Amino acid sequence: MSRRSLHLPAPDGAVLRARLDRARAAAAGTGLVIAPGSDLRYLLGQAGGSFERLTSLVIPADGDLALVVPKLEAPGFADVPVTALGVEVLTWVDGENPYALVADRLGKPDRVAVSDFAPALHVLALRDAMPAAEQVLAGPIVRELRMRKDASEIAELRAAGAAIDRVHARVPGLLRAGRTEAEVGADIAAAIVAEGHVEADFVIVASGPNGASPHHDVSDRVIEAGDVVVVDIGGPLPSGYNSDSTRTYAVGTPRDADVAATYGVLQEAQRAAVDAVRPGATAQSIDEAARSVIAAAGFGEFFIHRTGHGIGLDVHEEPYIVGGNDLVLEPGMAFSVEPGIYQPGRWGARIEDIVVVTETGVESLNNQPHDLVIV
Amino acid sequence: MSRRSLHLPAPDGAVLRARLDRARAAAAGTGLVIAPGSDLRYLLGQAGGSFERLTSLVIPADGDLALVVPKLEAPGFADVPVTALGVEVLTWVDGENPYALVADRLGKPDRVAVSDFAPALHVLALRDAMPAAEQVLAGPIVRELRMRKDASEIAELRAAGAAIDRVHARVPGLLRAGRTEAEVGADIAAAIVAEGHVEADFVIVASGPNGASPHHDVSDRVIEAGDVVVVDIGGPLPSGYNSDSTRTYAVGTPRDADVAATYGVLQEAQRAAVDAVRPGATAQSIDEAARSVIAAAGFGEFFIHRTGHGIGLDVHEEPYIVGGNDLVLEPGMAFSVEPGIYQPGRWGARIEDIVVVTETGVESLNNQPHDLVIV
Repeated sequence: MSRRSLHLPAPDGAVLRARLDRARAAAAGTGLVIAPGSDLRYLLGQAGGSFERLTSLVIPADGDLALVVPKLEAPGFADVPVTALGVEVLTWVDGENPYALVADRLGKPDRVAVSDFAPALHVLALRDAMPAAEQVLAGPIVRELRMRKDASEIAELRAAGAAIDRVHARVPGLLRAGRTEAEVGADIAAAIVAEGHVEADFVIVASGPNGASPHHDVSDRVIEAGDVVVVDIGGPLPSGYNSDSTRTYAVGTPRDADVAATYGVLQEAQRAAVDAVRPGATAQSIDEAARSVIAAAGFGEFFIHRTGHGIGLDVHEEPYIVGGNDLVLEPGMAFSVEPGIYQPGRWGARIEDIVVVTETGVESLNNQPHDLVIV
Repeated sequence: MSRRSLHLPAPDGAVLRARLDRARAAAAGTGLVIAPGSDLRYLLGQAGGSFERLTSLVIPADGDLALVVPKLEAPGFADVPVTALGVEVLTWVDGENPYALVADRLGKPDRVAVSDFAPALHVLALRDAMPAAEQVLAGPIVRELRMRKDASEIAELRAAGAAIDRVHARVPGLLRAGRTEAEVGADIAAAIVAEGHVEADFVIVASGPNGASPHHDVSDRVIEAGDVVVVDIGGPLPSGYNSDSTRTYAVGTPRDADVAATYGVLQEAQRAAVDAVRPGATAQSIDEAARSVIAAAGFGEFFIHRTGHGIGLDVHEEPYIVGGNDLVLEPGMAFSVEPGIYQPGRWGARIEDIVVVTETGVESLNNQPHDLVIV
């Protein structure tokens, strides 16, 4: 009858209480409706599950916070110190209207912010329950909290980075001609778990022409001598914080004569972008640092995605390292730096490290060698 | 850089084309915006991935269909026969505005229906791109198609039911005193995959007092002699169609003296509900058939959820078997019948079969014995 959900250790009550207080302050009069997922985990220590039955943390501008939750899902929040957090638990059963509970708790705000990943099912029902309130996204409010990681969060991301580095160190032993991408991927997935992750959230083994598709995962393609292979892997630690790192391998000498020179450009671009990270730089300047190197070498049209994405309780979160994002970087922000060059029909390459902005510059949380790894 | 997505075999083009035509007809002038997930898989044969970048199938009231997709996600749809389906692929890259592409394709409809599980991020951005259009849910439109399964879909659900029955047949060999729920759950998860599922989507092993929480999954609790254990398991076949079945086990003679009599009531209730399924009956009448038996025996307050949910490409979908739902059952509808009785702090029990409405009555897709299984 149910869907799998992950019950994992929660931060202590004082940390959660401070986050809730900051969320309310950041909302500045806007009512907040936090859906299951990483926002809920950040604020309440449990992610819950996002199904057709509404579960929401309701943060009104004034008054008590409430967790609106189906009665049968309530036990999943048993570890949350709701009393210490000042959160009243409002359960409901099938046939009752949970949106009225939310509306009643919020009062009559002019604006209600809903989690970015709240499903339309709940968003539109809440709109109908509160027709006078303008709906906006909670993302811009919650990201102000979540994108500046505290020391304990950075420690978790550092541990995640070290764990996925250990997996990449194993890849040369798994990757060889004659095996399929799926076979190699299964071994890598097992290594991701063996190295301390809760699960292998994603495993990309993109060989030969598949490497030219940045979001390829694995296939039954048999890896051949001469293939360039993009390996992009990661998953969450028990704390919920994620790893994500890409290295590019070659099975013997690359078949295509242009690989070495092109890869050199990519390596230079990735290093330039990492070196550009410091407090005060903008997100788009990091993107530009990578992009300009690649464009100057004539490969601009083959770098078909942004340079990076924030990472934390989500694999993709703010800040996004993309042209047009003039966000000024601050200490504690953590994100990927992952330019790629993709040659359609032939091969692709990408190098990805997670970095964190420090008081004076940058710390890379992934530290495997950046060279093309010949296996 | 990516999240795992599942690429699975698509139904043939003629089936998809017919579904698209019926979706447009059912929308009756409302523009449809179909998000990644099971709706997209139903209509296009690929589920895609629902991330911060917009991917949507756009079905205007008139004119060509379009798949709006980030350029780097487009290869994931390579197997979709877009030309045969009359779907134009509109790619976009970071920095461009995909919502304008959707709005432009939809024209100026009075109403736009978005998938029930489309994230708020996209729903509100689309609202802002089309301020004159009323947003409604696509669920009521798409469910009209999806909840009436055709013969090939029923065959897949039947295969899924047989597969999870084989897993339940293995459970007595895995469940014994001294093992933790998590250990038993891991073995069951492996059996779910071994019996033909793509993955173990959920594994509930709820022993002793944990059985009183319907959505418990697994824990480190050591199973003891005398425990009653609820085992609720399922996952998708390669076709995407799901299994979901619950049986209740006892480790030796149950510790609590009330188990046998109470379980007898539950068994009678579940059978009464299954026997009530036929074309022309309402969804709520099936719920009532189970509930009245349990209430008459004095356990009404301990049956704290609806009797069932539809199943197909989603584990939970329409029709919901719940009080207040006057939907009239028709041949091809498939759903769970899963009453439970939960004794807080002591034990719980649930029996769940997937059934399908036939021309004349009902077919149960789960056929393991319904007795309390003593292991």
